[in-house]
Amino acid sequence: MKKPLILITNDDGVTAPGIRALVEVAQTLGDVLIVAPDSPQSGMGHAITIHDPIRLHPSRAFPGLEAYECSGTPVDCVKLAVNVLLEGREPDLCVSGINHGSNASINIIYSGTLSAAMEASLEGIPSIGFSLLDYSYDADFEQGKPFIRQIMQYVLENGMELGSLLNVNIPKLPAAEIKGIKICRQADARWVEEFVEAKDPRGQKYYWLTGRFENDDLLPDTDLWALENGYVSVVPSMHDLTNYRAMDSVRPLEQLSTTENAASI
Amino acid sequence: MKKPLILITNDDGVTAPGIRALVEVAQTLGDVLIVAPDSPQSGMGHAITIHDPIRLHPSRAFPGLEAYECSGTPVDCVKLAVNVLLEGREPDLCVSGINHGSNASINIIYSGTLSAAMEASLEGIPSIGFSLLDYSYDADFEQGKPFIRQIMQYVLENGMELGSLLNVNIPKLPAAEIKGIKICRQADARWVEEFVEAKDPRGQKYYWLTGRFENDDLLPDTDLWALENGYVSVVPSMHDLTNYRAMDSVRPLEQLSTTENAASI
Repeated sequence: MKKPLILITNDDGVTAPGIRALVEVAQTLGDVLIVAPDSPQSGMGHAITIHDPIRLHPSRAFPGLEAYECSGTPVDCVKLAVNVLLEGREPDLCVSGINHGSNASINIIYSGTLSAAMEASLEGIPSIGFSLLDYSYDADFEQGKPFIRQIMQYVLENGMELGSLLNVNIPKLPAAEIKGIKICRQADARWVEEFVEAKDPRGQKYYWLTGRFENDDLLPDTDLWALENGYVSVVPSMHDLTNYRAMDSVRPLEQLSTTENAASI
Repeated sequence: MKKPLILITNDDGVTAPGIRALVEVAQTLGDVLIVAPDSPQSGMGHAITIHDPIRLHPSRAFPGLEAYECSGTPVDCVKLAVNVLLEGREPDLCVSGINHGSNASINIIYSGTLSAAMEASLEGIPSIGFSLLDYSYDADFEQGKPFIRQIMQYVLENGMELGSLLNVNIPKLPAAEIKGIKICRQADARWVEEFVEAKDPRGQKYYWLTGRFENDDLLPDTDLWALENGYVSVVPSMHDLTNYRAMDSVRPLEQLSTTENAASI
């Protein structure tokens, strides 16, 4: 049987320990192609590079493997991999991460890691974003590996609904203390911002973005509940942002606005 | 009665004609606070600035109005407005745009304009992103104004479901030819990328991102159908990206992974 082809990217950059751990797991399941940003791209969301040219160089970060580093965003990495490097070869799976820090709940929309996975899902590639709840550079990625391998294998064997991706977060716990995997919905939590104000040497004011995470959505079907209770959280996610439930509440707009009405406004 | 407070931002930058048109409409409905990027930020998606300090300066682009320009992304603009400039005053509405070019369908996830509106919705502020289907700098924003005013007024009077926002796109047509407003779902279309390869003066290869838009989702309940048929499209959108329908297909992962299983992988 032909080995599956696994595309790997991240948002912490090609030298981050997290992507190294992910490559180690992926190599046990298939052939890998690594295309990752040449510098950290956390918080880039679904940004793409349209006002600047993008550079793409072979990377020496993974000796013996096909690896590239890219000057663009995580989403750019996926686009370049699919459209320039692979030229028709379709990866069987795209994995992004392992992110240094949580991408549970609302973090999915700020996360370059998850946006890269979403871009792959837009290309029709089954895709998974992995994150470990440990922001430190020297985080221990070993405990999550068995679960990561299990989830990747499941998706390789069973495929994934078109346009869907998985947002996987791993608690910061020894493997023996992780209770298992939970399928969850995205908790409705948010960041409460606190900007830190400072002055530069020329007396000009500037701000640093910081904040604390606030969660009032405490139900046990959420990813945050699963993580707090020792589970790996898996949220099936998608790029259709339509709020179908809210359609009726704005439907009266259709009646209000005929050409006649519009002309008289 | 107290006049409503309307927060205004965009992704084309504080000097773009689109935001000027939006300010003109908003002024007829309430007091305005303008916080927009100091340079174009198209394609920034939900990016936030975490590795650099952010500058915020009073802007002279709107004489007589409270206006600021910000070195960060559209999402940064909303965060700074809410957390630094307003300090507790809650805007009654946030509007973003008018974008020079379409943000229908999948463009919502790449768009700084819509990400700013989504950020406001996360803050609990009813919010709307407006876009005109004309990419040119000198686009004529007049024809859309009656519809924009009507939609803003409707939201000011009726509020909006928490966590929801409206993605409004306006066809490039004279006002008299616009048939009205249609409430739609996001069409499942995508960009097919074609990278343009070039070489710099030192012989180094680089790429420009370009592409064409491809739509196979031709049903009449989509935003793309509405726009092609002369309607203003309104898609109620949200930040919950959970794919509830896909949950059952990955549910077997929960059974596979007990602590015992994980240890034996």
